[in-house]
Amino acid sequence: MDKTVTFGEVLMRLSPEGYKKISQSNKLEFYFGGTEMNVGASLANFGNEVKHVTCVSDDIVGQAAIGTMKRYGINTSGVVKRNAPLGLYFLEVGAVMRSSTIAYNRAHSAFAGIQPEMVNWEEIMEGAGWFHWTGITPAISEGAWLTLQEGLKQARKNGMNVTADPTYRKDLWNYGKDARRILTDMLEYSTIFIGGVNEINEILGTTHTSDKDGFTEAAKELLERFPSITKVFDKVRNGGNASSQKISARAWNGEEYLETEALEVAHVVDRIGTGDAYAAGLIYGLQHFDDRKTIAFANAACALKHTIEGDVNLVSVAEVLEVVEGNISGRIKR
Amino acid sequence: MDKTVTFGEVLMRLSPEGYKKISQSNKLEFYFGGTEMNVGASLANFGNEVKHVTCVSDDIVGQAAIGTMKRYGINTSGVVKRNAPLGLYFLEVGAVMRSSTIAYNRAHSAFAGIQPEMVNWEEIMEGAGWFHWTGITPAISEGAWLTLQEGLKQARKNGMNVTADPTYRKDLWNYGKDARRILTDMLEYSTIFIGGVNEINEILGTTHTSDKDGFTEAAKELLERFPSITKVFDKVRNGGNASSQKISARAWNGEEYLETEALEVAHVVDRIGTGDAYAAGLIYGLQHFDDRKTIAFANAACALKHTIEGDVNLVSVAEVLEVVEGNISGRIKR
Amino acid sequence: MDKTVTFGEVLMRLSPEGYKKISQSNKLEFYFGGTEMNVGASLANFGNEVKHVTCVSDDIVGQAAIGTMKRYGINTSGVVKRNAPLGLYFLEVGAVMRSSTIAYNRAHSAFAGIQPEMVNWEEIMEGAGWFHWTGITPAISEGAWLTLQEGLKQARKNGMNVTADPTYRKDLWNYGKDARRILTDMLEYSTIFIGGVNEINEILGTTHTSDKDGFTEAAKELLERFPSITKVFDKVRNGGNASSQKISARAWNGEEYLETEALEVAHVVDRIGTGDAYAAGLIYGLQHFDDRKTIAFANAACALKHTIEGDVNLVSVAEVLEVVEGNISGRIKR
Amino acid sequence: MDKTVTFGEVLMRLSPEGYKKISQSNKLEFYFGGTEMNVGASLANFGNEVKHVTCVSDDIVGQAAIGTMKRYGINTSGVVKRNAPLGLYFLEVGAVMRSSTIAYNRAHSAFAGIQPEMVNWEEIMEGAGWFHWTGITPAISEGAWLTLQEGLKQARKNGMNVTADPTYRKDLWNYGKDARRILTDMLEYSTIFIGGVNEINEILGTTHTSDKDGFTEAAKELLERFPSITKVFDKVRNGGNASSQKISARAWNGEEYLETEALEVAHVVDRIGTGDAYAAGLIYGLQHFDDRKTIAFANAACALKHTIEGDVNLVSVAEVLEVVEGNISGRIKR
Amino acid sequence: MDKTVTFGEVLMRLSPEGYKKISQSNKLEFYFGGTEMNVGASLANFGNEVKHVTCVSDDIVGQAAIGTMKRYGINTSGVVKRNAPLGLYFLEVGAVMRSSTIAYNRAHSAFAGIQPEMVNWEEIMEGAGWFHWTGITPAISEGAWLTLQEGLKQARKNGMNVTADPTYRKDLWNYGKDARRILTDMLEYSTIFIGGVNEINEILGTTHTSDKDGFTEAAKELLERFPSITKVFDKVRNGGNASSQKISARAWNGEEYLETEALEVAHVVDRIGTGDAYAAGLIYGLQHFDDRKTIAFANAACALKHTIEGDVNLVSVAEVLEVVEGNISGRIKR
Amino acid sequence: MDKTVTFGEVLMRLSPEGYKKISQSNKLEFYFGGTEMNVGASLANFGNEVKHVTCVSDDIVGQAAIGTMKRYGINTSGVVKRNAPLGLYFLEVGAVMRSSTIAYNRAHSAFAGIQPEMVNWEEIMEGAGWFHWTGITPAISEGAWLTLQEGLKQARKNGMNVTADPTYRKDLWNYGKDARRILTDMLEYSTIFIGGVNEINEILGTTHTSDKDGFTEAAKELLERFPSITKVFDKVRNGGNASSQKISARAWNGEEYLETEALEVAHVVDRIGTGDAYAAGLIYGLQHFDDRKTIAFANAACALKHTIEGDVNLVSVAEVLEVVEGNISGRIKR
Repeated sequence: MDKTVTFGEVLMRLSPEGYKKISQSNKLEFYFGGTEMNVGASLANFGNEVKHVTCVSDDIVGQAAIGTMKRYGINTSGVVKRNAPLGLYFLEVGAVMRSSTIAYNRAHSAFAGIQPEMVNWEEIMEGAGWFHWTGITPAISEGAWLTLQEGLKQARKNGMNVTADPTYRKDLWNYGKDARRILTDMLEYSTIFIGGVNEINEILGTTHTSDKDGFTEAAKELLERFPSITKVFDKVRNGGNASSQKISARAWNGEEYLETEALEVAHVVDRIGTGDAYAAGLIYGLQHFDDRKTIAFANAACALKHTIEGDVNLVSVAEVLEVVEGNISGRIKR
Repeated sequence: MDKTVTFGEVLMRLSPEGYKKISQSNKLEFYFGGTEMNVGASLANFGNEVKHVTCVSDDIVGQAAIGTMKRYGINTSGVVKRNAPLGLYFLEVGAVMRSSTIAYNRAHSAFAGIQPEMVNWEEIMEGAGWFHWTGITPAISEGAWLTLQEGLKQARKNGMNVTADPTYRKDLWNYGKDARRILTDMLEYSTIFIGGVNEINEILGTTHTSDKDGFTEAAKELLERFPSITKVFDKVRNGGNASSQKISARAWNGEEYLETEALEVAHVVDRIGTGDAYAAGLIYGLQHFDDRKTIAFANAACALKHTIEGDVNLVSVAEVLEVVEGNISGRIKR
Repeated sequence: MDKTVTFGEVLMRLSPEGYKKISQSNKLEFYFGGTEMNVGASLANFGNEVKHVTCVSDDIVGQAAIGTMKRYGINTSGVVKRNAPLGLYFLEVGAVMRSSTIAYNRAHSAFAGIQPEMVNWEEIMEGAGWFHWTGITPAISEGAWLTLQEGLKQARKNGMNVTADPTYRKDLWNYGKDARRILTDMLEYSTIFIGGVNEINEILGTTHTSDKDGFTEAAKELLERFPSITKVFDKVRNGGNASSQKISARAWNGEEYLETEALEVAHVVDRIGTGDAYAAGLIYGLQHFDDRKTIAFANAACALKHTIEGDVNLVSVAEVLEVVEGNISGRIKR
Repeated sequence: MDKTVTFGEVLMRLSPEGYKKISQSNKLEFYFGGTEMNVGASLANFGNEVKHVTCVSDDIVGQAAIGTMKRYGINTSGVVKRNAPLGLYFLEVGAVMRSSTIAYNRAHSAFAGIQPEMVNWEEIMEGAGWFHWTGITPAISEGAWLTLQEGLKQARKNGMNVTADPTYRKDLWNYGKDARRILTDMLEYSTIFIGGVNEINEILGTTHTSDKDGFTEAAKELLERFPSITKVFDKVRNGGNASSQKISARAWNGEEYLETEALEVAHVVDRIGTGDAYAAGLIYGLQHFDDRKTIAFANAACALKHTIEGDVNLVSVAEVLEVVEGNISGRIKR
Repeated sequence: MDKTVTFGEVLMRLSPEGYKKISQSNKLEFYFGGTEMNVGASLANFGNEVKHVTCVSDDIVGQAAIGTMKRYGINTSGVVKRNAPLGLYFLEVGAVMRSSTIAYNRAHSAFAGIQPEMVNWEEIMEGAGWFHWTGITPAISEGAWLTLQEGLKQARKNGMNVTADPTYRKDLWNYGKDARRILTDMLEYSTIFIGGVNEINEILGTTHTSDKDGFTEAAKELLERFPSITKVFDKVRNGGNASSQKISARAWNGEEYLETEALEVAHVVDRIGTGDAYAAGLIYGLQHFDDRKTIAFANAACALKHTIEGDVNLVSVAEVLEVVEGNISGRIKR
Repeated sequence: MDKTVTFGEVLMRLSPEGYKKISQSNKLEFYFGGTEMNVGASLANFGNEVKHVTCVSDDIVGQAAIGTMKRYGINTSGVVKRNAPLGLYFLEVGAVMRSSTIAYNRAHSAFAGIQPEMVNWEEIMEGAGWFHWTGITPAISEGAWLTLQEGLKQARKNGMNVTADPTYRKDLWNYGKDARRILTDMLEYSTIFIGGVNEINEILGTTHTSDKDGFTEAAKELLERFPSITKVFDKVRNGGNASSQKISARAWNGEEYLETEALEVAHVVDRIGTGDAYAAGLIYGLQHFDDRKTIAFANAACALKHTIEGDVNLVSVAEVLEVVEGNISGRIKR
């Protein structure tokens, strides 16, 4: 099992109890999360050795964030601190047709000020076999982008697997660089692509459709364009709303198109981090199973995350495998 | 956009957390609400200028009720106080086939003792264009009835629109007057009728059926009987239970029968105040849209209220319009 | 150990968490209490057999009140129900020089409508040796007064001990009878007087001072006026504020003046029901100890109640005796 | 209506709020329950006179357990105490396809150390007409088994009805006796069998199928083998998961096969104790209704329990009957 | 009674329950406050008409902040919004010798970006007689300083009273201007100085001692230097710690030295905002009482605030006056 | 700074909110602690590298306990798991003269079943310089004792410092061995003694008095009897009660008697773990300071722990040093 390194911002998420709005509340529940840390924590929970690299505030909040990572079993030796606040966001949870609403406070966060010289990638990546990055990180700031770039160079040097989840978030990317160019550069360093037709179209400037054929075409074109990338993994949400989701997974592994059956989550407990649960499931699967089982594992992990509070998928490998094997009865385990 | 005046009792609602019973609890969540105030608060939340007229207890509870109305943006200059407790009720929330249970404590409330001379309707209604009343108010006490009657007279004098929601609640009406006669009197002052076949049959002594034709006939007969009323708006609940509802709206606007598609709320967060959300949606719609869009807006507002905790519909106009336009995906808004 | 009967209203007490005000809160903690029930519950907790007679609402709140009494080990066979709400009050808890504030909602409670024919005193008092009443009950309503009177007659008939705590609460007594005359009548049926110089002056129309001599004179005069009464027990609060109290007890037992040392409670957890804890301590003491130990026991019980949340003194006899014996170290008991 | 005696362990159940895991929490909600006590509490709530016999810890936890039973209206005169901890379990609540997880701490509980000489069955069963036992009790310890046996002997002596719910829990039964032999012995003393084909196959060593015919055959064979048993009642769960259940009931009463329609509970609030709610519904039904109405009542009680928090079914007879009569609209009761 | 205008940042304060640290918690209580808003809210609570001018985030958090101000009865017509987060801080509450710890997140807040052209001071101050500012505001950003300056100019133009609380907070003032010069400029526009020897020394560059004579000298020198200022009000904390405070007030009103007795708060509920409570007490006092009563009122208001949760002093004028009159018994008010 | 190894049981502590009793509650707060783990966690919090060796339950509770240790920064590589429940205790928190009450459930815990072969002391202690044990561990079970003994042998082999806190807890020691003999054996391996006259008398069978001279004599005699021990550190509690404590420290370091001034904690937040905070302060002090500063540091750490919720002292070295230097003002740190 490869040691894994993840890199990205850790945010505090603050939300009123239940479905309340902030204006109705005097208490907020909080969790620490962040797309890459969520992946790392889920992998650590699966038994993987994980280092998460990030920059937190040098105060009581950053201290608590580090404590949370440690509790998840993440190695925090690569965490640095700055005298700037931890990024955070407020979340009002929606239901049925009412969307959840998020208000961010991250533009001037500790992480946004990270600089390449703060991270000793050589030391951090020693002995590691896997690196995971997302498109959120280079969108945050020039420093975040450049730091990530150094990480990718080191990963290539070490011959590591590199999973790329180049989610494109328009509202970030405010420091004057071209998102597409930067993401394209970074994909040159990556070996696994996590994303669907939208993401591929965004990067290649193509107009593939999102059906099976469109996905396959798009994936093939992507693999052609980026020779280091060998497989494309996609996650499909079929309709649904804030309270109910139906999800499946599909892949093009260079040779064949694979897809899973859909899993229905008719009672969504927490939707945040479900994509990260999918990515962690993929990485774990790629380290242990064949591609077909890998997407089943990733899809089941993603489905189960919808039933877990907080940002991180706290289910065990055994729990995921049970769903993979078709046991969705949810019977009490004594 | 017309300034709106609402009039009615404000109650404190006390309920155990989740689905607990009082006998299992040592804490109660509370909200201030009341059918007419809920309408006013939703309109204020939509951006309308709203005055709510009521009588609260002259103590720490009434003080908190006023604070809540202010927080909703309601003008409370027409609120009076009496040395009697605020009305309240206990609510144990049901689920699926188990009904919610309510225990009232309102018979001797501050509001029940209101008298016409406590309210200066002329001053309050200055500049306002809309008045909203419900059948709960005249049912509470003779003083409440007479005070409402003065309000209606002033509203007619000012040429205001008057929405009537003459819900008939048998368990109130304990002060010895005939409900039907009083409600009939008040409808003479009203311009919009909110209610369905049951309410119309109750008032006219008819036996119309509740299907489309029955509703249309009933509405026509009502408009004939009450020349000041020009439109009838109805809300339809299709089966469902304490946890799941399917709702649609229909109207007879004097010229044509209109109806909306049904919206399904398969995860009810809070059912209290959904009718009031519908009424507020109607009033807002009538002030801004044609009748067809109005009922779609009202139905969407009502559906969304099922996902909001507390008595008041806290969604924005934009959120309602999104559902009107068919976006019911509930995707996270960042 | 005599079986004890208590009679009086059970109220629901609702208060925000900590020191918050209602206007800052959306949750209220609640307890069921009431001066006579508190005495009964403390005695039941000490191991006594206790029946509490009262009238509660015939709804989910009354049901919970009965459940609470049962949990305390109180026999509720003498509890009746009416179709009227349970009395309740809101409490904002003060600290240091800021007073706690109470807002009542009890004027039209289930208990206020109690009538003598609802209570079968003969059956209830069978086998009982002690009856406890307070001045709150006859102040509530004519029905409450007359029902109590019947209880007192039965108690005399049975030769029971009768403790009277004729607290005079001016803001009650709204049904047009003379408080002093009624309280005087009831003292004719009582054997133990719980109260101090203020209460005695109120009843006798005297002007005794509150020092030791004044108290002794007052007590002597009371015993002369009411031959059935044999002893007078008083509770003294020495300065203090909402967060800190210093209390002692004194008595005139017809023969000698007795007093305890003061106990300091420098961290008041809950002041409600401390007087009732004193009364329960007295009754328990009179059933088990001599007068000197009785006042020490009652004073220690009262002091300990200041450290207990809720209305009822939940400490054990052993805990009280330890304080009586001078152990006030509060060391952890493993 | 027969007085009922139940016997079995009372456990404390501790679970994080909502769907949280213990590792995400710093608070745990708790309830006291236990399969036989749950049956007793539900019957007491239906208005039955119930004694529950058990052994609790002689400490603050056992004291609270007794208080809870009293609050439910259970007669606790047959409860004994031992200087050993109360059994308890931790529950992490699942959702949809994620199972709830339970971790027990009961092997050395107060109840596990119960001995026959601690229980005076003759005194306890005086005047009672019904005894209920389950297969959990003899599985706990030899003392628990022997104590139960004495109870069964007394029940037979008194000619009482005896309901047997011989659930077989493999992970218990650690004291070296043969579960099947002991359960068989105890069925000799029973008059009503609560269980399905699995339980019957386990006891008779047969291989009946679980369809209608298989159930009827199995039941017939059971009645032949155990002449004291006259009826077999079974509960069927049709698919479903941790958040949604569909349940029905069926019976063989010696003469005919009976079954109910299925009730769907698409929003499970709490699944613990639903089987106990079924058993309590059966016992109440057998005391008041014919067999057909009895299974409808038991099935409705079981369905409603899924909407109640905690271990005990707190719905009233009226609420159950409404569902029996087909009202599953869950409309608010004012 | 003069209408009052206050100006300054509104912050969200987030703190774990009780004395917990963030690393031990998963919930945070929150309040909206800010030194100038606290003054305004306390004055509004005393019955004054108050406008608070500020800039909040244009999101769910800013919306809630506005709602809170409205609930306090503050006129929010002068509140503007920006697309930047609301400033906030985390607070871990200390006890005894353990300090409370604060971590700020305000450097890039909505308020920090305020610009003079966003505020129409002429319109806002129409009809107002009092303006209050503190040294926090000009420390935040150049825009905040310049906006305040415009407000001061308008206040002078209107002949308003201007209270200055030029607290000097070194860790702010990061935009490159000289604090002392700016504060000095602003004092030219002020009529009342709230501060002690430290503040005066800071501004005048003097070295007065903090005893009575030092204070009087300092105050005299200040009045000489700033002819518009007529009175100096100081607050004295005598020793104490995080759980216990002893406070008094003193003043130089141009003619005589005045001081109050000390009030002891041996159980501090919440120390935040106690200085603001003092300032609000002063302003209210200056509008209603002579100087001697004014400092007694301000000191009592400050003492009482220590017993109130949150940032804002929610006690009434009557409650303050009672303490002024020496009633510090904290007896329950029924 | 020496790496430190601690060994002992980790318990879950469950207590009602505030000062409530279990019978009044439906929620319990929980913490993981245990005297030796508390010492380790405090040292880790001070920046020390700490390994805690223990045995936890192989379930969701043990998992959470491990997560908590990780969050504290403790290395858990020496933690083993058994299929037996985690030990736990219920705590009802007292106030003033009312003691806290504890009910244990630990006799058959996972830790009680630990055996020497489960712990590889050689590996665990590699590179470590300090070992800490208490008298609780050998009292739990024979396995715990023997495992500890192996640890002590390894520690001696490695020439490590060994702090002994041989607290004698009579209610444990149920496995038939002589406490005194075992504790004596273990002291042979120890270099620092933490305890006072009571503990020394217990071990030596002497009758020294607890004043300064008695302590010095006792310490001298102890050092004579156990040549490996070089210093004796004692903690003195001067009166006080559950809400207020006054503590000081004293030592005999083989050459001179040292003592600190007393620190008063007039508002105790949490008394559990204060002795462990003292021990951790001592160990940290001995690694960094001279003996005089060491006891001042330990006493200040102990005082500060009284203001921290939970079992572990979460204050920083800087916070302790501030108190050592006499700053006990508790002023807010911004």
